[in-house]
Amino acid sequence: MKTAFRDIRDELRRRIIANEWPPGGLIPNEVDLCAEFNCARATVNRAMRELAEEGLIERRRKAGTRVRDVPRKQATFEVPVVRKEIEARGSRYQFTLLSREAMPAPAWLCARLEIPDNSPVLHLTCLHCADGHPYQFEDRWINLKALPQAKQADFSNVGPNEWLLATVPYTDAQISFGALNSDPDLAHHLGCKAGDALFVAERMTSFQDEPITYVRMIHQRGHQMTMRY
Amino acid sequence: MKTAFRDIRDELRRRIIANEWPPGGLIPNEVDLCAEFNCARATVNRAMRELAEEGLIERRRKAGTRVRDVPRKQATFEVPVVRKEIEARGSRYQFTLLSREAMPAPAWLCARLEIPDNSPVLHLTCLHCADGHPYQFEDRWINLKALPQAKQADFSNVGPNEWLLATVPYTDAQISFGALNSDPDLAHHLGCKAGDALFVAERMTSFQDEPITYVRMIHQRGHQMTMRY
Repeated sequence: MKTAFRDIRDELRRRIIANEWPPGGLIPNEVDLCAEFNCARATVNRAMRELAEEGLIERRRKAGTRVRDVPRKQATFEVPVVRKEIEARGSRYQFTLLSREAMPAPAWLCARLEIPDNSPVLHLTCLHCADGHPYQFEDRWINLKALPQAKQADFSNVGPNEWLLATVPYTDAQISFGALNSDPDLAHHLGCKAGDALFVAERMTSFQDEPITYVRMIHQRGHQMTMRY
Repeated sequence: MKTAFRDIRDELRRRIIANEWPPGGLIPNEVDLCAEFNCARATVNRAMRELAEEGLIERRRKAGTRVRDVPRKQATFEVPVVRKEIEARGSRYQFTLLSREAMPAPAWLCARLEIPDNSPVLHLTCLHCADGHPYQFEDRWINLKALPQAKQADFSNVGPNEWLLATVPYTDAQISFGALNSDPDLAHHLGCKAGDALFVAERMTSFQDEPITYVRMIHQRGHQMTMRY
C-alpha cells in the first residue's frame, strides 16, 4: 500500500512531540526519509511543508530542516470598548462624566505624546458602571491641536472613548498593561480600599502620525482580561 | 480629465473622517456617486471596495453601504517567554528553582483545569532574574497524568516554561491579565513591599484537549507589557 503524506506527517509530528527529535536539532533529509518510508520525494515534501506551516519545523534551503527551538505563539485580542464589554456580560452600561477641563498639557504628558510644551489638551475623568457598580475609571487626555472639535463636544452622554472611535475612524495605537495601588481618590470612585491592586490598561493613539489621545483605564479590583490563542 | 478611483476613495474617506457622513449612517449609492464624480460605475465601485477593506464602511447587497459604527480593532502580541523577554532588554537572564513538590492537586486547581479530584500534579516555584534583580516569580502546576515525564525532569537549569515548550510543541491556551497585592512571601522573593500592586499573567494550556499546566507569572513592581497595533 502506498504511504499517504498524512501518515508521514503524523509520524514525524509524533517524533517531535515525543522529543525523539529534540528542539533545535536537525532532522533527516528528504532523501533519507523517502528511503525510510518507501515513498516518493513529493510525498515527504508535502508532509514537511505542513509541519513547517504548523510551526513545528524550520526549513532552510542549504542548512537543512530543524525542529523549531521555541514555537512562536501569538495571541490576538479585540481592543475593548468598555460599553460593549459590559453589555457582553449581560449587564446594564452606565456612563458618568466626573470632570472636564481644558488646560496646557503637563510636562509628563508632553513627553509621553511627544507634543510641544504647554500644548492645549482636554482632560476628562469618567466612570463606567455595570448594573450600577463601578467597573472602570477612565483618565483621558485629548490633544486639542489635533482634534479642536473635542472642545465643543458634549461628553455627558457619550464618553470620549466612543466619541473618538466615531471621530477618528482609524489609527495607530500602543497599548500597555500593568498594575497600580489605588489612591484614596480612585478608591472613592471605584468603591474599593486605598492600596488595593488594580489592573490598568494604558493606550496612546495617533492618526496619520499626529498624537491624538492618551488614556489610562483603571479597572475594578479583581478585574481580569482573558483571551484564547 | 478622468477622475481616478484614488481621488474618489480619498474624498469619501475625508468625508467619513470629517464626520460629514456620520458613523452608522447610510452613504449615497453608487449611481449617485457616479453622477457626482462624473465617472464610471467601476471606478466608484473600486473606491468603495478599498474603503470596505480598510474597515471604514460596511457594504450590504440590499441594505446599502453604511459607515462602520465602531471600527473593529485587533491587537496581536507574541506570547512571552521570560528568558527571551529579559535577553531582548540586553540583560543577563538567571533562573532559580525555589521549590518542587509532587502532590495531589488542590481543589481549586482541579476546578480550574477540570481534572479529577486529587489528580497527581507537580508544583514548582521559580524566580527569573534580570542582571541579578528579581523580574518574575513563576508559580507553576503541571498535570502529571498528562505529562508523567515531568516527574523525572531536571528543572534546576531549564525552567518548566521552556521545558514545556520543548516537550509539548503546540497547544491551545488561555491567558488572563490582572493585578494582585503582594503578600509577604512574594515581597521577599521579588524584593518589593507587602501590599505592592503587581501585574499578573495567568496561563492555562491544553494539548489535544488534555489539561497540561496552569501557571501564574507575577511580575516585579512597575512591570508593563506593551504592544502596538
